[in-house]
Amino acid sequence: MPVTPPINQSVAWAKLRQHQCSTRHLHMRDLFAQDPGRFGKMHETFNGMLVDFSKNRITEDTLKLLIELAETAQLRDRMDKMRRGDKINVSENRAVLHTALRLPENASVRVDGHDVVPDIHQALGRALALAEAVNTGRHTGARGDAITDVVNIGIGGSDLGPKMVTRALEPYRQRIRVHFVANIDGSSLMEVLRQVDAAKTLFVISSKSFITPETLYNARAARAWFLQQGFAEHELARHFVAVTNNLDAAHEFGMAAENVLPMFDWVGGRYSVWSAIGLPVMCAVGAEHFRSFLAGGRAMDEHFFSTPLRHNIPVLLGLIGLWYNTFYGAETHAVIPYSHDLRYLSAHLQQLDMESNGKQTNVHGERLEFDTGAVIWGDEGVNSQHAFFQLLHQGSRLIPCDFIVPANSHSPLEKQHQILVANALAQSQALMRGKTLAEAYAELESLDSHQRDMLAPQKVFPGNRPTNTIMIDALTPFNLGMLLAMYEHKVFVQGAVWGINSFDQWGVEYGKVLAKSIEPLLGNNEAAAHDASTNALIAYYREHHEYLHQHS
Amino acid sequence: MPVTPPINQSVAWAKLRQHQCSTRHLHMRDLFAQDPGRFGKMHETFNGMLVDFSKNRITEDTLKLLIELAETAQLRDRMDKMRRGDKINVSENRAVLHTALRLPENASVRVDGHDVVPDIHQALGRALALAEAVNTGRHTGARGDAITDVVNIGIGGSDLGPKMVTRALEPYRQRIRVHFVANIDGSSLMEVLRQVDAAKTLFVISSKSFITPETLYNARAARAWFLQQGFAEHELARHFVAVTNNLDAAHEFGMAAENVLPMFDWVGGRYSVWSAIGLPVMCAVGAEHFRSFLAGGRAMDEHFFSTPLRHNIPVLLGLIGLWYNTFYGAETHAVIPYSHDLRYLSAHLQQLDMESNGKQTNVHGERLEFDTGAVIWGDEGVNSQHAFFQLLHQGSRLIPCDFIVPANSHSPLEKQHQILVANALAQSQALMRGKTLAEAYAELESLDSHQRDMLAPQKVFPGNRPTNTIMIDALTPFNLGMLLAMYEHKVFVQGAVWGINSFDQWGVEYGKVLAKSIEPLLGNNEAAAHDASTNALIAYYREHHEYLHQHS
Repeated sequence: MPVTPPINQSVAWAKLRQHQCSTRHLHMRDLFAQDPGRFGKMHETFNGMLVDFSKNRITEDTLKLLIELAETAQLRDRMDKMRRGDKINVSENRAVLHTALRLPENASVRVDGHDVVPDIHQALGRALALAEAVNTGRHTGARGDAITDVVNIGIGGSDLGPKMVTRALEPYRQRIRVHFVANIDGSSLMEVLRQVDAAKTLFVISSKSFITPETLYNARAARAWFLQQGFAEHELARHFVAVTNNLDAAHEFGMAAENVLPMFDWVGGRYSVWSAIGLPVMCAVGAEHFRSFLAGGRAMDEHFFSTPLRHNIPVLLGLIGLWYNTFYGAETHAVIPYSHDLRYLSAHLQQLDMESNGKQTNVHGERLEFDTGAVIWGDEGVNSQHAFFQLLHQGSRLIPCDFIVPANSHSPLEKQHQILVANALAQSQALMRGKTLAEAYAELESLDSHQRDMLAPQKVFPGNRPTNTIMIDALTPFNLGMLLAMYEHKVFVQGAVWGINSFDQWGVEYGKVLAKSIEPLLGNNEAAAHDASTNALIAYYREHHEYLHQHS
Repeated sequence: MPVTPPINQSVAWAKLRQHQCSTRHLHMRDLFAQDPGRFGKMHETFNGMLVDFSKNRITEDTLKLLIELAETAQLRDRMDKMRRGDKINVSENRAVLHTALRLPENASVRVDGHDVVPDIHQALGRALALAEAVNTGRHTGARGDAITDVVNIGIGGSDLGPKMVTRALEPYRQRIRVHFVANIDGSSLMEVLRQVDAAKTLFVISSKSFITPETLYNARAARAWFLQQGFAEHELARHFVAVTNNLDAAHEFGMAAENVLPMFDWVGGRYSVWSAIGLPVMCAVGAEHFRSFLAGGRAMDEHFFSTPLRHNIPVLLGLIGLWYNTFYGAETHAVIPYSHDLRYLSAHLQQLDMESNGKQTNVHGERLEFDTGAVIWGDEGVNSQHAFFQLLHQGSRLIPCDFIVPANSHSPLEKQHQILVANALAQSQALMRGKTLAEAYAELESLDSHQRDMLAPQKVFPGNRPTNTIMIDALTPFNLGMLLAMYEHKVFVQGAVWGINSFDQWGVEYGKVLAKSIEPLLGNNEAAAHDASTNALIAYYREHHEYLHQHS
């Protein structure tokens, strides 16, 4: 690959720095007042989705310059390379093909000359068939009971994506209850085991390598519990299935070969809910709804790969996010879905974004001299309004937010949904407008002047705080697929402009190695030879750990 | 109150700025190597709690200067004023007495000459008696069934605190299942109603004013559901109780006077789990454990009010947090409990901290010219390692973290707990040490030089990233009380140094007003006269909202 100079040395970058200086004093309230056509130019609609980006600290010039930046970074070329299966995950020498998971059967994508689409559809077909067998009661437990509960044991991408999608599609759930166990903390598994009946439970063990310690320990503990419930080893195969590439280990664990579903090298964990990792989703909502979810993702892919940058939703969201991150120094980005069912979205996007772009080295191994990935955080609206919106409104930080608002609810409580939507709109308006000191004074006319002088400034809202409002017709499987693919591509856009490989994650390896050197020391009395703090913590643990349970 | 100059005009502030310049190049790895006594000087133990703050970018001089800053801000004086019931919530002219909720019966605190301690114990006694009656089955449903499920309906402090504490104390739960409904989104309530039996369910409606729309709509919907289940109006009183000061509204709703528990003006929502707002906790764990929780809070209060600043745990954590926030410009602070049961802690602290200190105006009404409250975020370890730790290790942001680690687990899976603890220690070590380029090269000896040049920089960890490790013997009610009070006081310390009133929340009012003006427009066709974006969103909603359920 020809080495291009880091993006911060480009003309477009310098122009944006300059542009930020000359526009940062502009207030959105004035921009709206000056241009009645602002909303018209600054929103996009696509397939039952409205993306309103007019409440941002941008002008048409900002967008032009950001697109110039993206072109300098050869964004379009990078998009094409991803789509056609080039090995853009350079450090691991892998293609990046989560978009292929959403392709129709008649498509074709080659990796090392091999068309992967038939493999994808074969794996998808097997996963959907297993899910449907569970769903319809054809796949029973070892003693003939219909399965009522699925327990997914996996961590990271094998947990966050499936959990978010399963919970988001709760109104489409058919019969199966789905539980998620991720943490190696035994409380996580025990909490779930208390709620299920072994005879009616299917465990899904998700780990590409089948050696992820958290997953393997929980899987073994679940296995031991299952046997304690009076089942025999040969009965395991009806109650444990796996999503893994380590067929031997799964077999040794007691699984039947037909219940071991494959993963693909060219799909990272955080992009894997579209693959067999989505098995718990499939068990919950069934094949048809899962196919709708895939179709929604595909629709967004087609939009992303084919729409000019100026009207390309993931590109616009990516570039506007980058504008605040890189040129305003905003460290964070909040995601606030006004939907209880989307309550796990921000946790999923946290991994998707931060694991992808939380890097300071570019794809060539050069240290970048500018800030990259933001902290992604957030929680469901309206709850968030009663938790941390105080700081969004009156704190000192610039925190760009995405508000996600379904126009229709699955709940019969219509009036409550209307209030929910009103709150979303009111908050984005308040964040944009603010409230001036004069307005605050006017509200406090009845107070004496001393009280007013103290109180009015505390009721000032600076405003000029940016939000994107993403309205979807309803939280359907299709729309959820669009939404999730939209964020995947947004993350890709930012990584591509910064010059990052968004698809490796070297930062998670080192701690694992150190943990292996510390863990035995917690159980013995050997001298610890780490730093003084770590040694002391080990000693404190030894002294205070009373093996409560071994002795009880 | 005599107006003191803003803290950023003080000598101590200038010295800290200077000190940051002269120490920011220091690497913690070297500080540990140079001083074998570092841990000894930089940790505190108290009542089965170890606070290790040695893995911070500080020297003994940093602590001295931070304490000088705290003294300049008259921290001790502000602490004393809070303790004795002075009206330090100036903008609302109220005392701030969550610490009084934890006092023993023989104590005394006067507000406007009236001793509030007897009121507190009377209210606590009533709440605990009701909880015990539910717990033991003495308080039955209208048809004589023992209560099995409590549904708490409340939002903000009436949700986050009780939920966090109830879930954290799951191993101490006796018989009652507790559910939490906060969001006005109907999905939140419907999800819970599907799981409960009206005959055996007690609803707790928590709202100081009994006019919080989210809570009131959900309460009314729960009431309607209850009546639809075949119960009569006169039977409501056995199934609905309230924590509110609006006795009339509660009575009109159908509650019995003896089941309406009071709140106090001098306790903010985010500090109220220690009061009758803790009723769901009391129902879950019983009176004795709730009293232990209060005792833990009291123990931390006594430590906070009586310990010299240099050894005062909440003061140290507050000042070290402020060091990064104010002098390093860190926008966020992450809280990572290595405990599944503490999975709601970061959400609770988000409100506690961000609603308290997310302000740019000081207590006198002057605009502050420096950054204040941080974004508090986080999730349970080890899950977080597989989600966003990539960015903590290799991203470009300085993100100070608190790791909270129980030395003993309630789960029988001992080995898993040992691995959990090893991970916590390994991560704080990795964040501190980092991994140099030379170390990364050495690991890749087998690769060709082109590959090594590309890969080694991607395996570099800069290190020098700060963590506090807070180890507790076990997650008991007492220790949870200590931990929570510790954070309350940490937030107070930061607010006091910045000169903020941490006890009002004007920033949450404005959006509520705007929502009231938007909500009717969503249901009619009147012209909307807001900004162009808001008008367009209203129009889009009208067009796309199909009243699915009214027509189905």
